[in-house]
Amino acid sequence: MKNSLRIDCLQYANWSEKVFRQMRQGRVDAVHVTIAYHETFRETVLNFEKWNRWFERFPDLIMKGLTASDIDRAQQTDRTAIFFGFQNPSPIEDDIGLVEIVHTLGARFMQLTYNNQSLLATGCYENEDTGITRMGRQVIREMNRVGLVVDMSHSADRSTIEAADLSQRPIAITHANPHEWVPALRNKKDDVIRAVTSNGGMLGFSLYPHHLKDKSDCTLESFCEMVARTADRFGTEHLGIGSDLCQDQPDSVVEWMRTGRWSKDIDYGEGSASAPGFPDMPAWFRDNRDFGNIEKGLRDVGMSEDEVAGIMGGNWYRFFADNFGGQR
Amino acid sequence: MKNSLRIDCLQYANWSEKVFRQMRQGRVDAVHVTIAYHETFRETVLNFEKWNRWFERFPDLIMKGLTASDIDRAQQTDRTAIFFGFQNPSPIEDDIGLVEIVHTLGARFMQLTYNNQSLLATGCYENEDTGITRMGRQVIREMNRVGLVVDMSHSADRSTIEAADLSQRPIAITHANPHEWVPALRNKKDDVIRAVTSNGGMLGFSLYPHHLKDKSDCTLESFCEMVARTADRFGTEHLGIGSDLCQDQPDSVVEWMRTGRWSKDIDYGEGSASAPGFPDMPAWFRDNRDFGNIEKGLRDVGMSEDEVAGIMGGNWYRFFADNFGGQR
Repeated sequence: MKNSLRIDCLQYANWSEKVFRQMRQGRVDAVHVTIAYHETFRETVLNFEKWNRWFERFPDLIMKGLTASDIDRAQQTDRTAIFFGFQNPSPIEDDIGLVEIVHTLGARFMQLTYNNQSLLATGCYENEDTGITRMGRQVIREMNRVGLVVDMSHSADRSTIEAADLSQRPIAITHANPHEWVPALRNKKDDVIRAVTSNGGMLGFSLYPHHLKDKSDCTLESFCEMVARTADRFGTEHLGIGSDLCQDQPDSVVEWMRTGRWSKDIDYGEGSASAPGFPDMPAWFRDNRDFGNIEKGLRDVGMSEDEVAGIMGGNWYRFFADNFGGQR
Repeated sequence: MKNSLRIDCLQYANWSEKVFRQMRQGRVDAVHVTIAYHETFRETVLNFEKWNRWFERFPDLIMKGLTASDIDRAQQTDRTAIFFGFQNPSPIEDDIGLVEIVHTLGARFMQLTYNNQSLLATGCYENEDTGITRMGRQVIREMNRVGLVVDMSHSADRSTIEAADLSQRPIAITHANPHEWVPALRNKKDDVIRAVTSNGGMLGFSLYPHHLKDKSDCTLESFCEMVARTADRFGTEHLGIGSDLCQDQPDSVVEWMRTGRWSKDIDYGEGSASAPGFPDMPAWFRDNRDFGNIEKGLRDVGMSEDEVAGIMGGNWYRFFADNFGGQR
């Protein structure tokens, strides 16, 4: 029998040996890492190159992840498998041929939007949500063909529901929480979660304070009760973790995430002029070493061992196994 | 026992279903195709994209080749495995990190120069040959690490000999003939061939008329006697075919090959103002259907079945098997 798995389906740390060692201390078998927010194709390739250097420098701590079986290999060799994703379709520019190219380079998730309208769909901060565009339909089909997962974490409701329905393969919201728990713009309403999960898709629970009840002061119990309630409503097998951990990043990075090159004005997004930086993480989830706290918290709210194992990694593992290869 | 193999280690056709069908008619199991002469990284990616479309459109005729075992799979399924290469280091621009990126995308050969001085080495048309540059030494080491073969077909003598010596893995001259047979600028002198083959490297014989004795009028017998003589001198196991077939290309393409964007003047290279286009191929090697003629011709000049099988594909197969993976 496989050891229970720990998979985090979104992080954007300021990567360092320290962070990689903490992943091992937290027994994190796989992490989906963001390598593009606003980057062009060429800039994204520079980020793949940076990761190639990390893999070369720390072969005992991390390895490139392309398929679910790489997670087994990582676990067997006491390493963390790193899977790549984009929070914006900017890396494919206006070129559908780049979908297969970035998949070949290792990308496994791509958001169709990052808050704003993109060439493909509408982001969650726009006033008008016009759904999936002409190019968006083509790109979803191409993503389905090669095995690049549609991620709608930062998309608007209608666009997300349309993507879930148009996609021939399950899609994901890798990092967000239910809107009914905290009505943040980035959290997802029931009909959005239902459209994704009823089509076999996944929701990854975020630990980013702006998505938590009482933000940085959110209690572990409140978070775990929310997870249990979501499991009751949508099915445990569709749920996992997508912590959105942005460890050790300077505040200049959250400004880049929010404004890229698209705006000359400062957009504080979920922050504010008085608190423009990254918020403090909750005390029970400071970094990769704290996954055990969540595991324990889920048990404490009455979830079964199987349910906890699924949410901590088993469900993402199955999703990775089904969705990262070419279409059958 | 494996069927005897046919591998052509360089073509640059104007690709079409017709050419792919001729490959099957000629029972060509694998072809190394050029996808860059002067292209930048982004332009080269567009060429990878074009090939992805060919693979999608003609899955019964061709498949992407990444390892030698793909040639077995191609043979078993009656297809041709396509391996990618560059005749210039332009795709990696000034960025050593792109070496691994292009290897991940499928590149398996890269020339350090195309006739001119490059960032890495000196081309065979320059007056001064200063050998491998500072960046060239770094790039050769990186190519060795990832399994991207150094190809010196269009390089100058000193640069080629230095590359053969500096490289920790065997290098190749994928498409050229011995200078002693025809003293073309692109053909290789004895000490160059010796430096490459004595380090385990390969020479692929070219069928491009400018590299042949009597050009388009070269006889099959003359070509095959040259092959047999080269085998006697340098060892059969280091020899294969690299036809340099440029089938169905308009003459504008040979002008692009010669001048790219580096010159405003026309450089006729091995052609001339009165014959600026592609020369006619010899009557016994018009296209991929004619590999059987060479096979028969080699037997007729007295080469053994094993020797013929090695030159027609077995030697390249072994070289691919040893040199396309990461360094051990």
